[in-house]
Amino acid sequence: MEFSMKDFWNGSRRALARAITIVENEQDGYEEIMKEIYHHTGRAQVIGVTGAPGAGKSTLSDNLVKFYRKMGKTVGVCAIDPTSPFTGGAILGDRIRMNDLTLDQGVYIRSMGTRGSLGGLSRKTADAVKLMDAWGLDVIFIETVGVGQSEVDIVKNADTTLIVLVPGLGDDIQAIKAGILEIGDVYTINKCDRDGADRLNVEIEMMLDLGEAKDWRPPIARTIANEGKGIEDVVNGLNEHRKYLEESGLLEERRRERVKSEMAEMIHDRISRHVMEEITESGKFADYVERVYERQTDPYTVVDSIVGDIFK
Amino acid sequence: MEFSMKDFWNGSRRALARAITIVENEQDGYEEIMKEIYHHTGRAQVIGVTGAPGAGKSTLSDNLVKFYRKMGKTVGVCAIDPTSPFTGGAILGDRIRMNDLTLDQGVYIRSMGTRGSLGGLSRKTADAVKLMDAWGLDVIFIETVGVGQSEVDIVKNADTTLIVLVPGLGDDIQAIKAGILEIGDVYTINKCDRDGADRLNVEIEMMLDLGEAKDWRPPIARTIANEGKGIEDVVNGLNEHRKYLEESGLLEERRRERVKSEMAEMIHDRISRHVMEEITESGKFADYVERVYERQTDPYTVVDSIVGDIFK
Repeated sequence: MEFSMKDFWNGSRRALARAITIVENEQDGYEEIMKEIYHHTGRAQVIGVTGAPGAGKSTLSDNLVKFYRKMGKTVGVCAIDPTSPFTGGAILGDRIRMNDLTLDQGVYIRSMGTRGSLGGLSRKTADAVKLMDAWGLDVIFIETVGVGQSEVDIVKNADTTLIVLVPGLGDDIQAIKAGILEIGDVYTINKCDRDGADRLNVEIEMMLDLGEAKDWRPPIARTIANEGKGIEDVVNGLNEHRKYLEESGLLEERRRERVKSEMAEMIHDRISRHVMEEITESGKFADYVERVYERQTDPYTVVDSIVGDIFK
Repeated sequence: MEFSMKDFWNGSRRALARAITIVENEQDGYEEIMKEIYHHTGRAQVIGVTGAPGAGKSTLSDNLVKFYRKMGKTVGVCAIDPTSPFTGGAILGDRIRMNDLTLDQGVYIRSMGTRGSLGGLSRKTADAVKLMDAWGLDVIFIETVGVGQSEVDIVKNADTTLIVLVPGLGDDIQAIKAGILEIGDVYTINKCDRDGADRLNVEIEMMLDLGEAKDWRPPIARTIANEGKGIEDVVNGLNEHRKYLEESGLLEERRRERVKSEMAEMIHDRISRHVMEEITESGKFADYVERVYERQTDPYTVVDSIVGDIFK
């Protein structure tokens, strides 16, 4: 497939899709694309959506997309696949969202997996968001299914994070909740017609009370996503948070922090790759592995020596 | 608190606990400890336990521990906490397992969080397992709550992986299942008295049929962990897999691979830290961040230049 930046700037959806693929797979030309588009980023409202598995995030996102469309905004969705360490994810990718949204030219939906992985999924997501932003989408959702550290890292690419919770999912979920509660700017209790919605609401309030006092108190909405109920409250919360970010100067602060951590990650990746290539090529690494495996030495001593060699 | 290797080798539980804390927090002396114990590792049977949130992994693990104890084995448990990116996890840590197991001198239970984090949780877990192994525990469980990539990475520290599934947890779970299915050596359908257990069994069989044909066909047990039912079947599956690993030579292969990836990770960590310290101290990094944030340049160009400087 051919790709031209001219098509990209002219608004071709195919060019956007192609650009994301090039970046995702780190194919030739990906750095050139990123360098060219970087100056045109920073315009979109970027919203992360995460929460416990089974909370109904996809349905909720679909409803949010439709709401923003009615407000005249163009919308991008970056849906993170549950990662398969062997086939490289994309389990959900080809299955979701085969609905009316895909026919709307003002909506662009993209699944991100770890196919062709070298860099991390977080970096790829950040790049895909930048591409959608530069291409001209007004609102971009980053949607993750999981609840682990890597998913939290991914959501950090957003300006505002929406946490979707659901009543009654057991003990593990309670614990996970405590972890994700700290990154939430807006909450919604989805499937709020289920037993336990009130208790969950009280629990969230209590956790927020326990946390550090901040200028922004996250609002807690209630939704029944598959009936389209409560969506407006969520959107109001998201927009209020956006306003707060802008007026308080926190938007700049968060984005500056993000530049910093992105650059640090890129430097890590590049250096590690360079070093591993060098020691793998020389055959030194294979020798060391064998000696450590045979317990003739230990990995700590070996790593000291390898790293010492590099920075001598 | 004082720590001596002599106490550690004499079987002091307090010394084991202290050693893990030193390693977890990368306090002074941690590399010396790891260098000394490394030669005494490789004896324990290391079993990973993972699965969807709410599947009842903790209760199942407790039952497995008791079963191995009855077989006369000493047992260690490394329980990974759901990670909180800000407070550093340990939500579950102090809550779980305040039961009869903690009174048994043949059992050692430890929660791992990301407190004092610099290296990753996967590296810390690997080190804690090595300490338990060298200290003399026969069977070591690594138990994770999450389902994301980081949890999968952690479970890769085990020789045998047990996947705990549960009927009827909705769509997200189905997708996650597909991801973790590929790392399972033994499966159990927990809460198997619930509706949907048979269907789940068929689904797992189908996924296994779809996967690459291998010499080992993972057995699927059925348990009701909180009634102690079906535990023996799981243990039989785990032990058969162990036997298979040893006889096929796969145990050596997996452990060699693990040495390789552990060393690669250590090298990455060390080099990245060294480089970041250097460029942070010089103030260069802060300048670059500001210029990128102001979009006077882009991160790709800047990283090219920083990395180029290091390896010129």
